[in-house]
Amino acid sequence: MSKKNAFYAQSGGVTAVINASACGVIETARKHSDRIGNVYAGRNGIIGALTEDLIDTSRESAAAIAALRHTPSGGFGSCRFKLKGLEESKREYERLIEVFRAHDIGYFFYNGGGDSADTCYKVSQLSEKMGFPVQAIHVPKTVDNDLPITDNCPGFGSVAKYIAVSTLEASYDVRSMAKTSTKVFVIEVMGRHAGWIAAAGGLVEDHGIPVVILFPEIKFNQETFLAKCKQMIEQHGYVTVVVSEGAHWPDGKFLAEQGTRDAFGHAQLGGAAPVVANMIKDALGYKYHWAVADYLQRAARHLASRSDVEQAYALGKAAVEFALNGENSIMPTVVRKSTSPYIWEIGKAPLSEVANVEKMMPAEFISEDGFGITPACKEYLYPLIEGEDYPPYKNGLPDYVTLENQSVEKKLAAFKLS
Amino acid sequence: MSKKNAFYAQSGGVTAVINASACGVIETARKHSDRIGNVYAGRNGIIGALTEDLIDTSRESAAAIAALRHTPSGGFGSCRFKLKGLEESKREYERLIEVFRAHDIGYFFYNGGGDSADTCYKVSQLSEKMGFPVQAIHVPKTVDNDLPITDNCPGFGSVAKYIAVSTLEASYDVRSMAKTSTKVFVIEVMGRHAGWIAAAGGLVEDHGIPVVILFPEIKFNQETFLAKCKQMIEQHGYVTVVVSEGAHWPDGKFLAEQGTRDAFGHAQLGGAAPVVANMIKDALGYKYHWAVADYLQRAARHLASRSDVEQAYALGKAAVEFALNGENSIMPTVVRKSTSPYIWEIGKAPLSEVANVEKMMPAEFISEDGFGITPACKEYLYPLIEGEDYPPYKNGLPDYVTLENQSVEKKLAAFKLS
Repeated sequence: MSKKNAFYAQSGGVTAVINASACGVIETARKHSDRIGNVYAGRNGIIGALTEDLIDTSRESAAAIAALRHTPSGGFGSCRFKLKGLEESKREYERLIEVFRAHDIGYFFYNGGGDSADTCYKVSQLSEKMGFPVQAIHVPKTVDNDLPITDNCPGFGSVAKYIAVSTLEASYDVRSMAKTSTKVFVIEVMGRHAGWIAAAGGLVEDHGIPVVILFPEIKFNQETFLAKCKQMIEQHGYVTVVVSEGAHWPDGKFLAEQGTRDAFGHAQLGGAAPVVANMIKDALGYKYHWAVADYLQRAARHLASRSDVEQAYALGKAAVEFALNGENSIMPTVVRKSTSPYIWEIGKAPLSEVANVEKMMPAEFISEDGFGITPACKEYLYPLIEGEDYPPYKNGLPDYVTLENQSVEKKLAAFKLS
Repeated sequence: MSKKNAFYAQSGGVTAVINASACGVIETARKHSDRIGNVYAGRNGIIGALTEDLIDTSRESAAAIAALRHTPSGGFGSCRFKLKGLEESKREYERLIEVFRAHDIGYFFYNGGGDSADTCYKVSQLSEKMGFPVQAIHVPKTVDNDLPITDNCPGFGSVAKYIAVSTLEASYDVRSMAKTSTKVFVIEVMGRHAGWIAAAGGLVEDHGIPVVILFPEIKFNQETFLAKCKQMIEQHGYVTVVVSEGAHWPDGKFLAEQGTRDAFGHAQLGGAAPVVANMIKDALGYKYHWAVADYLQRAARHLASRSDVEQAYALGKAAVEFALNGENSIMPTVVRKSTSPYIWEIGKAPLSEVANVEKMMPAEFISEDGFGITPACKEYLYPLIEGEDYPPYKNGLPDYVTLENQSVEKKLAAFKLS
């Protein structure tokens, strides 16, 4: 079997553990140097492939690659750049194959969410048609946890842990202050379409915290929401609200778009959290605080879930091993064998069944009143936040790696992105 | 020497380590049970003393008290309730002494910031005058780091660490995304009057991150700010902005009060972060993300600084030891003997010199252009974020303690708070 180079790229929003998958891909490829030549990474994701801006990962030391495992963000840069249908984006797909051919790339490892699974699928289809077969393997990654078939998506467990811990800590804080001061704490979390991350905030209920969740899956009802908050404050003295950025009114308008205008008439600036906090203040008069976690949640490698880090690495490793076994057009998955203790193994799914399928929160994970999570949901979530995996520290700060990211010499004419 | 009971109360905004000071007070008092009887804690701070709502900490197990060391928030509840001058709040001060007398309290440990130092000072003055001498010792606590004399204030080091780490992580994230997406990340931090917390965000500069800080000490200049951001984005491809909630325009108006109104004409909802982010977007057109850390930062015991936890405990312990040595009307302090390595010891300051004195950021800690910190500031900050002190975890979440908080039987008539 001839030796081929590999191409690896990170896609879409980065996470606390996408680099752990990169580490799994590169370390495993290096172990099979008899069959895989260099691993080239796309600088800023697939754009790096299109513009032939490749990074030679073989120039990085073993220590630097190992440090990727504990470094958040995308070590090679990521991008938001969606390839469309094979006809519509024909020029781009053909260019990809051209670049792969020029650099003798036989393995395509694409690390991302739903869109990149679709791209990966199309590359495998087209490359065969174009007579330059590339084994395309998708490595799952998304904090949104919305890929099908796999038990969960790397990146999600760590965000879930961060949100559960942060919600717990802030709730302890407001509980301390509630007698004379803040009685309502609102935290806004990511998840425009699915409430997986918001659901993780609901785990604090098991620590005695009165918590109300606003899911994107449930149309917002101001009356029942305010009644629920009032009841909880009267019973517990305070309440914590976890609001998904995707929470919306029955007409589909996001809570965050409350029609607020600044002095110049620009649309409002804030997120859903201040809107919800003010709503409670206006209706019930309680003092509030609110936080918007934004990038802090998905970058929080300092509080990564150990099972998430392990799975992110294992899926990267499995992608390479599947490729070496001749697999094509698949995505390695996490298969849950048991919940308590959490036992999982690596499986695989054909990309034809992954691409363009979105996994939503099952209805049975949301409590009947729509403001909480069910025992089944907790049972699903707990294993995913299990264990800690602390990065090393130096002078009080995490010792994250910044790679050299040296370029591979270009062989083709320039390509203008459309 | 007769045996007296002790009273301990938590005051003002709670922190990640105020309970570590409580742990130091109670564990040390228990070691001296020959001279100190029970430690009574005020339920919800000084309000607990005024309303004779005392918690009997002797009913808590040694394990529960030990767990306070790793539990954020105020274990006995805190409050925002400021006692005024001796004449103005005469009724309250006299009531305090009355409660202390009824419960044979000879030691008053008050754990808080500037206001509580003042209250503590007044109690010691008045108790002598009223013929029921109480030894009043103030245990420093404030994330604002604005108490004089002491090298720093417990609570600050952990917030500083949290903000530095979070800013670093989010900056790595935006660096990954900047090619096609977010180029500006804005994080809003606490500190209405002093820029100590915002300064901690500046430490990421040592990790190659282009960072711009908006301090409350520096009047906001939109033109130079935008020019600075533009220059950094052109040079690095992205920029991180750390904005203090207290950042304000030359006329004193906070950036957060941008004159925004919602559909009903209510004043704007958001903080300074969205205002700053939109300002950059409007002027320069860059895509942004923003976060507001709020309570997450001061409650983040999961990422506490080890030196902060150690000092918080040591100051609680020292308060009891000073009291047993006959000291009165003082505050134990941290004295920095050396910066590298960080060597500190416990000192003491008379409350007359602590009360009503606010320690601001020295001018030489802010860079000449007003948007960064100086090497002297970094030298001051690094030791305070040094070391990690992780709480134990159970099922993926920190195993924080919630105390029993059993009441002491009341002996006096009810007291109505004015």
